Amino acid sequence: MAITVVGSVAFDSIETPAGREERCLGGAATYFSLAASFFTDVRVIAVVGEDFGPEQEAVFHARGIDTRGIERAAGKSFFWEGSYLDNLNEAKTHTTELNVFAAFEPKIPEAYRDSEFLFLANIDPVLQRRVREEMPDVKLVAGDTMNYWIKDHRPALLEVLKGLDILLINDTEARMLAGNNNLVQAARAVLALGPRLLVVKHGEYGATLFHRASPDGEESKTFRAPALPLEEVVDPTGAGDSFAGGFFGYLASQPALTPAAFRRAMFYGSVMGSFAVERFGTERLQALSRKEIDNRFILFRELTHLD
Amino acid sequence: MAITVVGSVAFDSIETPAGREERCLGGAATYFSLAASFFTDVRVIAVVGEDFGPEQEAVFHARGIDTRGIERAAGKSFFWEGSYLDNLNEAKTHTTELNVFAAFEPKIPEAYRDSEFLFLANIDPVLQRRVREEMPDVKLVAGDTMNYWIKDHRPALLEVLKGLDILLINDTEARMLAGNNNLVQAARAVLALGPRLLVVKHGEYGATLFHRASPDGEESKTFRAPALPLEEVVDPTGAGDSFAGGFFGYLASQPALTPAAFRRAMFYGSVMGSFAVERFGTERLQALSRKEIDNRFILFRELTHLD
Repeated sequence: MAITVVGSVAFDSIETPAGREERCLGGAATYFSLAASFFTDVRVIAVVGEDFGPEQEAVFHARGIDTRGIERAAGKSFFWEGSYLDNLNEAKTHTTELNVFAAFEPKIPEAYRDSEFLFLANIDPVLQRRVREEMPDVKLVAGDTMNYWIKDHRPALLEVLKGLDILLINDTEARMLAGNNNLVQAARAVLALGPRLLVVKHGEYGATLFHRASPDGEESKTFRAPALPLEEVVDPTGAGDSFAGGFFGYLASQPALTPAAFRRAMFYGSVMGSFAVERFGTERLQALSRKEIDNRFILFRELTHLD
Repeated sequence: MAITVVGSVAFDSIETPAGREERCLGGAATYFSLAASFFTDVRVIAVVGEDFGPEQEAVFHARGIDTRGIERAAGKSFFWEGSYLDNLNEAKTHTTELNVFAAFEPKIPEAYRDSEFLFLANIDPVLQRRVREEMPDVKLVAGDTMNYWIKDHRPALLEVLKGLDILLINDTEARMLAGNNNLVQAARAVLALGPRLLVVKHGEYGATLFHRASPDGEESKTFRAPALPLEEVVDPTGAGDSFAGGFFGYLASQPALTPAAFRRAMFYGSVMGSFAVERFGTERLQALSRKEIDNRFILFRELTHLD
């Protein structure tokens, strides 16, 4: 089944202990769609500036991603500059230039309207909600957000949460959104805001899937996918978006959304995140094969398999 | 097979968001031996003061733990006072009174000498080494240490590491010991110092077992045990020592130290750590049954089980 994703397509200048790269292709929608494209058809909604040329577009097309929803606007693309010199787990932002993103009005191409899956990547919740409302018939909606929206745009974000099946955020965001430092209690509070599933990403420690208790009081089992202890992390940028792409892409490829499918989706999310950080920007995702993905899935499985 | 453990038996005054407890029975050897006692025979070497009475001794005897190696000295027992008010993952130490521990000279009872397993809990590496040398014929030796010894007593600690099969430490300690922030690289550096196995404890995210590469270049598979996301952490004190007790106790109960036994031992370690934090001090470990342990083992297994 096809996924429509709305989010940022951007240029990133990134410094890590492994080096520095200027103006890599980046943005949440880029990482998400590249990761998801290994599992299913992906359609992107975003806005870019005049600096987004055939070279960047080719990255999407090489993976069969539909870019008809990437609008060209006068000006420059969203630009982010950050570093991970002290701590690979937390980016230090040096520059954020919204550029054409400041006036972004998502437009959904007709050809995207039969998408069964919708992913609302981390953008202004007002825009997330608009896209959600314009695609009322999708089968499954997932989304991401970040500390900035949680802190300063809470009412708009709460409206988005009501329309989500699955929210994917990290530990800090879950605790901040719930106002509770205990992860289990925070998860329950977040699930009361709308989504029936919550994926909390723990960076190098994997991710946990929490379920809202069903009306009969039966609580589905919490599930934890490990992350692979990595020899070298070249660039953590996009790890979370790649996780989301692997997770949601795998789900969209499945004939039925069984508990087992969700568990495997968590592993595929972790797998895609682990590849993303091996090179700067989207380099590793671009060069990846499905065979490498499935081999690493087996490695992850062995990492926690008991018998 | 029987385990001899040398380490601290102490009193702890602990403050957490759940409340405050004065002078709980504590100490690394206490948590370790209570956790291990559910799997095998445990013998303790420690020193206590005149404040350690029949009430404390009964806690050990109720679990069948041999206390003939707990020496009584004039004065007061080791006392620690700390709080976890801001952060449940890191204790803030208010008071450390070594008391009788300052002049501790471990003496190994004759009846302990046929122990096949030896655990050197977190004490002065000079003492750890002495006990290790006095028990040259044990089958498996594991140990723990902490930032204080890593920073200020490195040469003595390095001597201990040469005599260990397994070192159990947390992330921060592993990175500090190796002088390397990447966990995989840090693990390799630590394994070059002596132990052939390294267990790195990640607190609420579980623990990872690293193996030294064998001489034929074949590297055994890294293994990660999850931690259970807990609804309520009452008191984190002793979680790491309880992990070590569950891990080493389970190993000592096995007919053969197969890779599968090590994997299950990692899970039992996580299980015992998860119980320890549910009540203040050793309260939960004292009230525990083997049936509860095995039920939680199944829960942990389901937490990461794919099929």
